[in-house]
Amino acid sequence: MSYTVADYLLDRFTEAGITHLFGVPGDYNLQFLDNVINNPTLAWVGCANELNAAYAADGYARCCGAAAVLTTFGVGELSAINGIAGSYAEYLPVIHVVGAPCLGAQQRGELMHHTLGDGDFRHFARMAQEVTVAQASLTVENACYEIDRVLQQALTQRRPGYLLLPSDVSQALATRPTKPLLISHEPTDPGLLAEFRACAQERLAESRSVALLADFLALRFGQQKALQQWMDDTPMPHATLLMGKGLFDEGQQGFVGTYSAAASEATVIESIETAELVICVGVKFTDTLTAGFTQHFTLQQTIDIQPNATRIGERWFSGITMAEAVSVLHQLCKHQVSGWPASNHKPPALPEASSGKLDQHAFWQSIQKFLRAGDIVLADQGTAAFGAATLTLPAGVTFISQPLWGSIGYTLPAAFGAQTACPNRRVVLLVGDGSAQLTIQEIGSMMRDGQRPVIFLLNNDGYTVERAIHGAEQRYNDIASWNWTQIPQAMNIHNPAQCWRVTEQVQLEEVMQKAALAERLTLVEVVLPKQDIPELLQAVTAALAKRNAAKD
Amino acid sequence: MSYTVADYLLDRFTEAGITHLFGVPGDYNLQFLDNVINNPTLAWVGCANELNAAYAADGYARCCGAAAVLTTFGVGELSAINGIAGSYAEYLPVIHVVGAPCLGAQQRGELMHHTLGDGDFRHFARMAQEVTVAQASLTVENACYEIDRVLQQALTQRRPGYLLLPSDVSQALATRPTKPLLISHEPTDPGLLAEFRACAQERLAESRSVALLADFLALRFGQQKALQQWMDDTPMPHATLLMGKGLFDEGQQGFVGTYSAAASEATVIESIETAELVICVGVKFTDTLTAGFTQHFTLQQTIDIQPNATRIGERWFSGITMAEAVSVLHQLCKHQVSGWPASNHKPPALPEASSGKLDQHAFWQSIQKFLRAGDIVLADQGTAAFGAATLTLPAGVTFISQPLWGSIGYTLPAAFGAQTACPNRRVVLLVGDGSAQLTIQEIGSMMRDGQRPVIFLLNNDGYTVERAIHGAEQRYNDIASWNWTQIPQAMNIHNPAQCWRVTEQVQLEEVMQKAALAERLTLVEVVLPKQDIPELLQAVTAALAKRNAAKD
Repeated sequence: MSYTVADYLLDRFTEAGITHLFGVPGDYNLQFLDNVINNPTLAWVGCANELNAAYAADGYARCCGAAAVLTTFGVGELSAINGIAGSYAEYLPVIHVVGAPCLGAQQRGELMHHTLGDGDFRHFARMAQEVTVAQASLTVENACYEIDRVLQQALTQRRPGYLLLPSDVSQALATRPTKPLLISHEPTDPGLLAEFRACAQERLAESRSVALLADFLALRFGQQKALQQWMDDTPMPHATLLMGKGLFDEGQQGFVGTYSAAASEATVIESIETAELVICVGVKFTDTLTAGFTQHFTLQQTIDIQPNATRIGERWFSGITMAEAVSVLHQLCKHQVSGWPASNHKPPALPEASSGKLDQHAFWQSIQKFLRAGDIVLADQGTAAFGAATLTLPAGVTFISQPLWGSIGYTLPAAFGAQTACPNRRVVLLVGDGSAQLTIQEIGSMMRDGQRPVIFLLNNDGYTVERAIHGAEQRYNDIASWNWTQIPQAMNIHNPAQCWRVTEQVQLEEVMQKAALAERLTLVEVVLPKQDIPELLQAVTAALAKRNAAKD
Repeated sequence: MSYTVADYLLDRFTEAGITHLFGVPGDYNLQFLDNVINNPTLAWVGCANELNAAYAADGYARCCGAAAVLTTFGVGELSAINGIAGSYAEYLPVIHVVGAPCLGAQQRGELMHHTLGDGDFRHFARMAQEVTVAQASLTVENACYEIDRVLQQALTQRRPGYLLLPSDVSQALATRPTKPLLISHEPTDPGLLAEFRACAQERLAESRSVALLADFLALRFGQQKALQQWMDDTPMPHATLLMGKGLFDEGQQGFVGTYSAAASEATVIESIETAELVICVGVKFTDTLTAGFTQHFTLQQTIDIQPNATRIGERWFSGITMAEAVSVLHQLCKHQVSGWPASNHKPPALPEASSGKLDQHAFWQSIQKFLRAGDIVLADQGTAAFGAATLTLPAGVTFISQPLWGSIGYTLPAAFGAQTACPNRRVVLLVGDGSAQLTIQEIGSMMRDGQRPVIFLLNNDGYTVERAIHGAEQRYNDIASWNWTQIPQAMNIHNPAQCWRVTEQVQLEEVMQKAALAERLTLVEVVLPKQDIPELLQAVTAALAKRNAAKD
């Protein structure tokens, strides 16, 4: 069989470490799909709809590094675009391949299905420009080099790329790649590095106490191992915000918990905010992470390490990569002559649970006991994510939430994607009832593929995070009442699931023991009091409500 | 309580005939939602996700004339945008209201949740420009006049509009509307009308036979009644394409069936294509409607009446409205001295069903008998829509499909919206298994609201329309296998549903009798042979496959 553009694209995916393609077929991408089916390395993973496919790809990318999703022109790509936007906001290199009408039809401006009926085939590529870092409309001439350009941009900037692939172009003859997709980074100018090192050394020398805050961009730009080594070598007080949770070994000396600005536990505030120097690595201070921007670090107090530049005091060093900045700071800290006070603080304990009542406190205590080393834990936007912020993660746990983009329901298909990436790790999904309704159909895909996640469905009868912000008793915060424990079986005629509904703490504990055996997909519907929310969420929502009502 | 921008918007909705607002709450739209709940005329209809909410609004608009959907910034609006695009393509005035962060946060470029984290709050409004006819970012100064401008554009052009509504702006004081939203159309210049009339009269006089083709734009621009009166007065051969089905009384003398170019039944081709003059009203010849552009009308052979201009032969008359053109042509035909041959053709009978087997032929025969006057019938893209094209609709039936945009799964939430618009009409939904999986959660909303549609779920084990185009045996056309009859009960703990699974023709007939009683939501899973497709779909998919493989 001839080597085509389709094969070239799939080979580049394989080179990028992508071995699964999520998506939904449509007639404009069927020829390309034949190549996918025939490809020995890459597997097709059909999803129930395109938004879920994009969410699944995002979850996969968080585990594997990069991902790809295939949709069809217009109707498919626009259904997926909210997922792509979330990947853009939270820095996941998800490649969106869109099957399009053949070039001739486009050039002739024909009135094709899946278009706006105006002969303009560029509407949706223009829309994609807003939420991707690189885009290309492929032709028989440019396909291979444009594929390379878009993938290179996406992979180096860690953000989505967009490839419009006409049905005939996918089948055009191509030559195999001859050069690697990614070329090594040019070494940074030694003079610049030296200057940076000197400036940092000076800053460290004049600081009597140092703390470190790292967050999601450190994960995205591959600094997890380096940072952990650094903290092992010089165990200063350190924390992440919610978005970077899972970056650090939370049992390590010096790890103090989740930093949430004014909503943090007192020991976290003391450890982080009172330090004379706070080194920030890959941190973005967004509203829900900081209870409404209640952090108050001065420029002088901070070193701010970002992917492409680092700030020391008021001075930005452009062209220093995050890896280089981390390495320099790490070495300097190791060789610091005068030591800094070590931290004695441990992450705060969870709030105590009351009598035997099944409420938020009791639930999170139980979840804390349930988690195991190596789990992949996903917590949906709302009570799930903010409750999970207070957990102390066992070693090697990957924690997935979406606090910046914050699309409810994201985590259910993301769990499907994460499990697809890591079939041998246990996936634990914490998702509210309101959220789960948005994306529920991917449970069918989980079961089709024999996945065995443990799903805790928090049934507090509605959009609890919205109730907490505004309109606690308003009917717009109500949802349709589902029989949650019947859902998995309704979505699969072959593989059984195990489902329970618990209303008492003792039931939850009992069910968790069974769930730990995990021989099949598990869904535990946990009935929680309607307006009971984790303390952290209370603080955050109070801040949000105030800002939304502000006249300013 | 003070009169605010929110109240102004809702009053304008009421004036436009919109009495329900579909959507999903988010913290940026909660204050506005309080106004919705308090409004005495307009009802909030919460949906399970935003794409379904937009589809529901589209279905509502097809029944009521216009609709509105409310989402939240970024995550909500982008989830809905595929639905808005479909409304744009198929001319439904759906107003998309997006709750946004307060003006101050936007002006300060804050790192808010539901943004891309770059301080730019205009990304999504730019995206909306591609799929809406008018957009506005509301401020306390411009809110009322911009609401008017966007609604006027949307309602007159019959296409979606976009309103970005910051949370503080929604609560700003406003004054009540003083002028009507829509002003009467300026009368057309009498000289132009006279010229048009003379030209049309000449064209009619020289034609020895006349036929009429009308389609969806005639519905959208309010010409259904006028056209029916015209056909009652002068019963020439007339037809719609699939997209306009339901426009005409299909029992009327002269109605010949569905015109699908080369894929039409022989009698339809003869009636329409051999006429010396074919009057087209609101027709767009798109690919799936015409089996790949196999219609071959010349300019000379046609009069082409569009919303804002009409062509007679090679001459376009701009500024003549569709209503005026229809009225002129109607009058001229009535008073035509020499009559034209009447049509003796009736719409073709459905293909005969074989022995007792439950296949496509048998199914459509049964559906034909099941339909009643006044039904709202929705048929999803795929075997459902192309099979339904061959039905002869009873009087007063509204037929809803989406052949141009063609987003599978659209009809399920659209049925929810249509039933919301018309609670006293029976809703019959024909949807395939692949399609239904995309949007299934709206069954929960139907049941919450006590709706009683009759849903025929065509289970042919996968994306049958894709199998017909390409990859019949490929696993990418497989879907997860669901227990369809368990779905409704899983999505509602209160109201019961009635569900059956039928594999034999006699079972289907029996179940249809029970379904006709319709005291609760009905779901009939109809098991059909995997690759059995309606003849019309065979012709259309053959044409599509050829075009997608074309190297050109």
